[in-house]
Amino acid sequence: LPGSLSEIRTEVLRQVRPTAQDRARQEDISRSILERIDLLARSRGLCIRAILVGSASRGTWLAGDHDLDIFLGMPEGSNLGDALDLAREVAPEHEEKYAEHAYVHAFVDGFEIDLVPCYLVEDASRLMSAVDRTPFHAKYVASRIAGLEDDVLLLKQFMKGIGVYGSELKTGGFSGYLTELLVLSYGSFEEVLMKACSWRPGEIIDLEGHARVRHKEPLVVVDPVDPRRNVAAALTIKKMFQFVTASRCFLLGPHLDFFFSSAIEPLSDEELLMYVQERGSNFILIEFQAPDVVEDVLFPQLRKAEDAVKALLDRYGFSLLRSDVGSYGGKAVLLFEMDVWQLSKVSRHSGPPAWEAEHLGRFLEAHPHTMSGPYIEGDRAVVEIPRRYTLASDLLACEINGLSLGRHLTGAVRKGHNIYVGKELAGIKEKDFRIFMARYLKARDRIC
Amino acid sequence: LPGSLSEIRTEVLRQVRPTAQDRARQEDISRSILERIDLLARSRGLCIRAILVGSASRGTWLAGDHDLDIFLGMPEGSNLGDALDLAREVAPEHEEKYAEHAYVHAFVDGFEIDLVPCYLVEDASRLMSAVDRTPFHAKYVASRIAGLEDDVLLLKQFMKGIGVYGSELKTGGFSGYLTELLVLSYGSFEEVLMKACSWRPGEIIDLEGHARVRHKEPLVVVDPVDPRRNVAAALTIKKMFQFVTASRCFLLGPHLDFFFSSAIEPLSDEELLMYVQERGSNFILIEFQAPDVVEDVLFPQLRKAEDAVKALLDRYGFSLLRSDVGSYGGKAVLLFEMDVWQLSKVSRHSGPPAWEAEHLGRFLEAHPHTMSGPYIEGDRAVVEIPRRYTLASDLLACEINGLSLGRHLTGAVRKGHNIYVGKELAGIKEKDFRIFMARYLKARDRIC
Repeated sequence: LPGSLSEIRTEVLRQVRPTAQDRARQEDISRSILERIDLLARSRGLCIRAILVGSASRGTWLAGDHDLDIFLGMPEGSNLGDALDLAREVAPEHEEKYAEHAYVHAFVDGFEIDLVPCYLVEDASRLMSAVDRTPFHAKYVASRIAGLEDDVLLLKQFMKGIGVYGSELKTGGFSGYLTELLVLSYGSFEEVLMKACSWRPGEIIDLEGHARVRHKEPLVVVDPVDPRRNVAAALTIKKMFQFVTASRCFLLGPHLDFFFSSAIEPLSDEELLMYVQERGSNFILIEFQAPDVVEDVLFPQLRKAEDAVKALLDRYGFSLLRSDVGSYGGKAVLLFEMDVWQLSKVSRHSGPPAWEAEHLGRFLEAHPHTMSGPYIEGDRAVVEIPRRYTLASDLLACEINGLSLGRHLTGAVRKGHNIYVGKELAGIKEKDFRIFMARYLKARDRIC
Repeated sequence: LPGSLSEIRTEVLRQVRPTAQDRARQEDISRSILERIDLLARSRGLCIRAILVGSASRGTWLAGDHDLDIFLGMPEGSNLGDALDLAREVAPEHEEKYAEHAYVHAFVDGFEIDLVPCYLVEDASRLMSAVDRTPFHAKYVASRIAGLEDDVLLLKQFMKGIGVYGSELKTGGFSGYLTELLVLSYGSFEEVLMKACSWRPGEIIDLEGHARVRHKEPLVVVDPVDPRRNVAAALTIKKMFQFVTASRCFLLGPHLDFFFSSAIEPLSDEELLMYVQERGSNFILIEFQAPDVVEDVLFPQLRKAEDAVKALLDRYGFSLLRSDVGSYGGKAVLLFEMDVWQLSKVSRHSGPPAWEAEHLGRFLEAHPHTMSGPYIEGDRAVVEIPRRYTLASDLLACEINGLSLGRHLTGAVRKGHNIYVGKELAGIKEKDFRIFMARYLKARDRIC
């Protein structure tokens, strides 16, 4: 249903604004946890201040999200281990995670709760770690966002709908804090979209006018609480411009679809084979057990591995149409679609200039058996010799174990991997793989 | 049989130095023609001076060559048509040819004779045409070459043996006059070879130290009789460095083979098919009736056509290993050996930056039906669309008639042509074609 901006605004908010009941429930639970922490801290004689941070702290969470981020602040110099112990007791059933410090993650009354020890520093210039910055973010946004909460909700949902929301490294999109700063900076949801239409790589937004450092990322949003930090550092140029073009399309033809995209259906065998046939390209998939690391560690390594394989293919004369990486059900995959995957058995090697007698001698010694040549072309000697790999898939099968693919991946690939070529892809039945392929093959962004 | 330089020198000269009998016969015939011209000129009251030029005029012709170049010199302002008429009468059975002026070519007593009208100018600065320069060359060399004739013969035969002798455009090698100047410049056959070992592109030889013009050719030998002219203008960089490397090899291991290379045998069907199979490449041959022009007109056009087809193949994403042109039995051929001849059915087109709304709109309008996309990559829009030609041979079959291949060739190709792909080459049985392919496939120069 297309419609006027204000109708769409109303309808989206009806769906994503937490109800009064949602809010009351969230407040009850967070208050009870904060009180529990205060009590325990007092009983142990610890100086710990519990602070609710994140979107829950400022009414900018989307209905259906049940995340509570609670920081356990201690004075500088304290032992954060005491706060961690306390967090363990607050949520006896938990798992421990690790960002810059260890923290506790638990599931309580339907809420996902992070309990994160941190230092309470006097001012942001004395930050010890990224974690310590969060309470400053909470304070900065909470004191300014009143009246703009709906605009933040609209922007977050718009970004979700077009697939650019989330600053985890797999996505490389916009963080919640970044959406809040965009709304604070431009004044409304619609203004953010309008301003984004004229963004270019290197765009700088500096609410406090206190930028101190040059950044090389495509979008720079200077952190109001830390002039050296770019809040948009994790945003990729691709996600930035997916947002730019979707904003332009939306303003030209507003529609609810931008906010609520339909789920991607997995490809059937027939569909997958039809695509392989129709594209007449050469798909090569390398599949292996994903190493036991979080996605924020896995995905940057997968992308580095992708680049290493691309360079290998290029070095041997093959040509890539497109590639992608993914993970599903404990496996990781590197997908390469070749537009040139077969080469002649003979290959040419150009030698040194004909007047460089010494170089020439070494070149000829290195190629004692030629298929043609040595002959002169221009002012150089050329030989034609057998090509080592005439098929891209042979090259990968033989050389993948020798590539340096990154800390966790090199070992994971060497431990064992499968290579699927062309129609063999249809042998992989996992639903998440078929969704990964659908996303790859139907790739289409909102551009107009 | 390898051997000492002096043994080889002696043996080569034994084979290529005209005998006393050869010389006597040549002198008899040229004298009788010169006298005939003088007589006829006097009887007609024409002021014509007959001059023997070329290698016959200075004892630097190779045994077995029976060429006489006789120029019919007239004062400036005369009607060269009178000299042409006279030449026709001197050799009643002749054909007429055309370089810068018309001239007469005849076969008399076993000699090929050119009778060329020209102007006798006072000094070379007043040259009317290239033809008028020839008598100056004859005079310059004749007055200096005495005692070095054997060195010229050795150098010519060496160049013949390694395939770099002949300044016609098909060969692009060294002219007879150029070999004489090299010997005059460096002093002996061996010295020419030694000096050539250190030639580089841009080498300049200026016997009279009177160069006036910059030339862009790889070897510049300033004409002693015309400071603006490069005697080596027709020498290709390839032939120059074939000579350089062969010279180096010969000095390292002198051998008679350098002077007398064995003839190239035509390939049998089996050999040709074996090469096609072994190289695992894709041969595409375009064959058509050669236009009725001399080789000096045909070959530059064939090479331009070769370049035009190369550019076409490249533009469509195919990749060439090597190519060649040739002609045999009234036909001309363009040969292309591809190392990439098949591409995916889908192709990528990168559009304008995502922030250039107008360009982007036009780009999307131009690609209404995509196989994937439009999607964002980096800061640009990309579409994937069907590729027009997935096979190099299809591209050539469809587009060759639309190419601009040069004055005589465009029409010749459009009138009709055959395209042979891969093993179909074995369907061409002409011996000269099989020699052309042998030369291509066994390509090997003397390099060490």
